[in-house]
Amino acid sequence: MSMLPPLDDDALGPEARAVFADIRKTRNTDYVNHFWRVLAHDPPALRRTWNAAKEVMAPGALDPLTKELVYVAVSVTNNCEYCIHTHAAAARAKGMTDAQFRELIAVVALANQTNRIAIGYGIDVDERFREPLA
Amino acid sequence: MSMLPPLDDDALGPEARAVFADIRKTRNTDYVNHFWRVLAHDPPALRRTWNAAKEVMAPGALDPLTKELVYVAVSVTNNCEYCIHTHAAAARAKGMTDAQFRELIAVVALANQTNRIAIGYGIDVDERFREPLA
Amino acid sequence: MSMLPPLDDDALGPEARAVFADIRKTRNTDYVNHFWRVLAHDPPALRRTWNAAKEVMAPGALDPLTKELVYVAVSVTNNCEYCIHTHAAAARAKGMTDAQFRELIAVVALANQTNRIAIGYGIDVDERFREPLA
Amino acid sequence: MSMLPPLDDDALGPEARAVFADIRKTRNTDYVNHFWRVLAHDPPALRRTWNAAKEVMAPGALDPLTKELVYVAVSVTNNCEYCIHTHAAAARAKGMTDAQFRELIAVVALANQTNRIAIGYGIDVDERFREPLA
Amino acid sequence: MSMLPPLDDDALGPEARAVFADIRKTRNTDYVNHFWRVLAHDPPALRRTWNAAKEVMAPGALDPLTKELVYVAVSVTNNCEYCIHTHAAAARAKGMTDAQFRELIAVVALANQTNRIAIGYGIDVDERFREPLA
Amino acid sequence: MSMLPPLDDDALGPEARAVFADIRKTRNTDYVNHFWRVLAHDPPALRRTWNAAKEVMAPGALDPLTKELVYVAVSVTNNCEYCIHTHAAAARAKGMTDAQFRELIAVVALANQTNRIAIGYGIDVDERFREPLA
Repeated sequence: MSMLPPLDDDALGPEARAVFADIRKTRNTDYVNHFWRVLAHDPPALRRTWNAAKEVMAPGALDPLTKELVYVAVSVTNNCEYCIHTHAAAARAKGMTDAQFRELIAVVALANQTNRIAIGYGIDVDERFREPLA
Repeated sequence: MSMLPPLDDDALGPEARAVFADIRKTRNTDYVNHFWRVLAHDPPALRRTWNAAKEVMAPGALDPLTKELVYVAVSVTNNCEYCIHTHAAAARAKGMTDAQFRELIAVVALANQTNRIAIGYGIDVDERFREPLA
Repeated sequence: MSMLPPLDDDALGPEARAVFADIRKTRNTDYVNHFWRVLAHDPPALRRTWNAAKEVMAPGALDPLTKELVYVAVSVTNNCEYCIHTHAAAARAKGMTDAQFRELIAVVALANQTNRIAIGYGIDVDERFREPLA
Repeated sequence: MSMLPPLDDDALGPEARAVFADIRKTRNTDYVNHFWRVLAHDPPALRRTWNAAKEVMAPGALDPLTKELVYVAVSVTNNCEYCIHTHAAAARAKGMTDAQFRELIAVVALANQTNRIAIGYGIDVDERFREPLA
Repeated sequence: MSMLPPLDDDALGPEARAVFADIRKTRNTDYVNHFWRVLAHDPPALRRTWNAAKEVMAPGALDPLTKELVYVAVSVTNNCEYCIHTHAAAARAKGMTDAQFRELIAVVALANQTNRIAIGYGIDVDERFREPLA
Repeated sequence: MSMLPPLDDDALGPEARAVFADIRKTRNTDYVNHFWRVLAHDPPALRRTWNAAKEVMAPGALDPLTKELVYVAVSVTNNCEYCIHTHAAAARAKGMTDAQFRELIAVVALANQTNRIAIGYGIDVDERFREPLA
């Protein structure tokens, strides 16, 4: 039940139109999904969020597929149905196989389980894991 | 503040001792961390959880490092300090670089942000993302 | 999928009826929404929850609109669709503009993002922020 | 237990140094808190997150104090101790009284309670609350 | 919107078929619900999860009904609609009365409320509650 | 890091003093724990929360120990360290054995795991579980 309707292209002002053009160019597709069409009601949020997503999800030290898998893992933990569906599809488009998806769910489920064992027993962090990474 | 103290090796019964032996062999280290030493108060849970972790985290369609990154992502979203520290260390041991850790946190943070945009606006799943994966 | 059907007025016992009368009087409307009609299956919970809501949401040091915005922020973070819809409507009735709603979602999304940066890096609270408020 | 140590000013590269200068100028204080000093290990994330925070938390349709209260509400719901302490202090600096803080916690607690009543009973959204806001 | 369709009996391989036989025998019913039929796409996960559920939910120091109530409490807190419905039904089958269900929701709601009061005020654990249980 | 210090008895006003007297009488102990001593900064919240807790946690269709177990289950899922420690102690005082505590953690962990399997695969509620309970 969307609080705001997805905006059609001809309802966009210049700032949103520029963002949509960049989404299409970056993703190499004409399709712009509901997330951006709803966020287009708030053009500064649309620009800010798209720029952040574009920067964070770009290939870097982690490859784009790994980033999508992490995105799905967070979305499942938070129970965001929209995000699970769109990012599972994005992961699919970047090469995720059925077997990888099933293993992803299994790891997410295991981590949610063991998180509560550690929290429930209040397990103290081992001395050797207390040092900073860098 | 641990609800139960980590058990020393000489406090273990035979079922827990067998699990500890398998942990040591599988991980190729003598060190057994607090998580298993606390869970050793409940030998069936120790066995069950270790067998599940061993099976789920083994190399498969996803490589072990990717699985650790997903584990950390869930643990950050759930705010499990113990799990973040131990699995960041595990990821480190499997090759995670500093740059990869920083990108991981950035993706987790972005997903937590956009999850709430999708939830807050109640965005409806696009028709094209509604089909089953398989 | 409601576990219990919303109760009609003529299905109410005296305790629930008295609460409904107070809801109508306090809100100055005849409409009683599903939340209270379902909770009416448990009259003591209905009375207790309504009295708490009435007391907590009343004008005080914070004005009623600010309280509704906070309510929506929590409901978005918890992904409670029912609560988002009803309290966004309540905020609307108390003067929330479209622009305010969009900014609210942006703040909620930002906070969810930065919460995970602070948790993921395990950032220690600065000395100056450790003192009690009062 | 910070995964990465807060960076001192003389450990900053040019991109981080520019962000710190803008933080100091915008906030009109020389103090830069741990959050930014840890994020400074990832200069693009530092820049991106600071720019987003600056834009989202600026006075707009909602005043800065209301935004801080919403921030604290989300941080309490997510159990982010760092974020609760820093944003309660920020709210304080923007005029939050003790009485307002206490009412804020009461609203957050009430919303977390009623969220689970609505979720637990699976209450269906009333027809009248299903319409889009705009 | 299921990502994977529930599998019919004749689509199962031998490992999944054996698990389904054990589900039917253990529960003394021919009906196998969607959870297991979807998980059947991943036979090792099906086997592992069923064996864990069978072991954990069996009568032990806690009786089966109490375990189902705890399951529902977690599912409500996490907002898992599927899990609330199936485990409320399971609790029903094990003797949960309407009055017990209503009290369960009331306790879950209260705990979610007071959790945030404790977190929001950052209340320190009393000395006397810091000792290990065993 | 408490935002507000626990109040000593001689710092209480009449409303808080009356609540403390009722806590002592109801629990049959002179000890009043930090939760109530911090909440005493907000006497109406103290009164409201104590009355709700007293009513909800009283023996009813569910016995007091079962209610404490449910309380701990929610607190573990939400990662409220204060609440886990105090309510595990309360459950202990009401007869919870070590074996029951270990089984409780196992059920909480299992439910958190299977919740994410159901959410991750987006499993549709079976027709037979869609009917209202009452």
